[in-house]
Amino acid sequence: MSNKRPLILVTNDDGMFAPGIKSLVDVARAFGEVVVVAPNSPQSAKGHAVTLEDPIRINRVDAFDGLEAYECSGTPVDCVKLAKYKVLNGRTIDLCLSGVNHGSNASVNIIYSGTISAAMEASLDNIPSIGFSLLNYSFDADFGPAKVVARKIIASVIENPLRDTQLLNVNIPNVPLDQLKGIKVCRQADGRWVEEFQEGEDPRGQKYYWLTGRFIIEDVKVGTDIHALDNNYVSVVPSGHDLTTYPAIESNSSLEKIRL
Amino acid sequence: MSNKRPLILVTNDDGMFAPGIKSLVDVARAFGEVVVVAPNSPQSAKGHAVTLEDPIRINRVDAFDGLEAYECSGTPVDCVKLAKYKVLNGRTIDLCLSGVNHGSNASVNIIYSGTISAAMEASLDNIPSIGFSLLNYSFDADFGPAKVVARKIIASVIENPLRDTQLLNVNIPNVPLDQLKGIKVCRQADGRWVEEFQEGEDPRGQKYYWLTGRFIIEDVKVGTDIHALDNNYVSVVPSGHDLTTYPAIESNSSLEKIRL
Repeated sequence: MSNKRPLILVTNDDGMFAPGIKSLVDVARAFGEVVVVAPNSPQSAKGHAVTLEDPIRINRVDAFDGLEAYECSGTPVDCVKLAKYKVLNGRTIDLCLSGVNHGSNASVNIIYSGTISAAMEASLDNIPSIGFSLLNYSFDADFGPAKVVARKIIASVIENPLRDTQLLNVNIPNVPLDQLKGIKVCRQADGRWVEEFQEGEDPRGQKYYWLTGRFIIEDVKVGTDIHALDNNYVSVVPSGHDLTTYPAIESNSSLEKIRL
Repeated sequence: MSNKRPLILVTNDDGMFAPGIKSLVDVARAFGEVVVVAPNSPQSAKGHAVTLEDPIRINRVDAFDGLEAYECSGTPVDCVKLAKYKVLNGRTIDLCLSGVNHGSNASVNIIYSGTISAAMEASLDNIPSIGFSLLNYSFDADFGPAKVVARKIIASVIENPLRDTQLLNVNIPNVPLDQLKGIKVCRQADGRWVEEFQEGEDPRGQKYYWLTGRFIIEDVKVGTDIHALDNNYVSVVPSGHDLTTYPAIESNSSLEKIRL
């Protein structure tokens, strides 16, 4: 990055008034000019959704002392698009920070995550982007250690630009700072959700289902984010938007023999 | 797959009454027992969103002659989860088909796509899953050639199980059948959207933004899905849910030197 004060976009998926984004803004403002564009309501698990069928709105809010901040009626990815094209009107964003998420985005949770999808959206334009998540879902979580982690990773990325990626998925164990053993750069562990819908009847007698579930992880090998986190390391997974499974191109090439 | 008649789940993101899903159901029913669970409203570009903040509902509908079909108030991924755990109650799904989408899901569009996200959700449980998209956004598109393509690809996948992947992203050029040159198994081309928000004022005088944009593709090399489609080939991209950028693990390992 050049010597000028970097322009930093901060967003999240828990909404403008979640403690996690306050922690991230606190850290980010030491590094440059911070502009915040975040959802006006919780947008967890919105994945890479964008709003096509409805208009979206942004409103300037006074959420962070002296900082330009806007709440947006759309998804986390909508926030990044509006930030880029309307709020910042084409100014070059030097860094995009998303989070700190209340809860894990390790393993396959990345594909459901609004936090990481927002960061990925920025990374599509070659903006270095980092999603931070703390392994504690509660509103009252202690973000102190996460702030230290975020400060040091941001400083490092500003000093040494990322290589071969513009997107880091950072997850932080829910332990006091003195129990954090360090940082591991690792791969996404495989995993999946097993769902257990809560069923009920609404006041009109209509049946409903409410999604709940538990996460199943069988891939805890050394080198995975889950292994790092289980051992009190911060996990950093360099990530991207190319979903191609390269070995499968060759191994399924018999499909090319089909005559249409 | 075993000799019994396979159980095939069909879904989409354009909603239960889009012509595309009708085409896919027409094709699928020749191969096995078909159950349809699809959104009750358009859910384009919902990515891998799931509904956490609200209950979801399903209603049985008589949309396809003699077939079990349910419309769901949630996202495409919600449809697959409800199908698995409630509609099919844990029965083994042998194949998941999603689409036929009205419009391209080639290149980076895969990350925004409800069609492919639904198929990916099934693939997380090792269910062979195929998302089909026709490069024509209109309601009146001719799905005739797409039906031929879908029939032949489904037959092939049933006869020769997929290798190294459980998810195919199939895109079909918008040309008559006799102009389709064949099938290419390829990688996802790189690309990005440049947005052009439509701005207006609602009846209450509030400003709104409505997302629109154009797709920029600079990666049209041989071996990409865009190259195949531009040359009237059907593109098949074997895809997955591991977003790790592997070369970047080593090249960003200096992050591990950070002292927390």
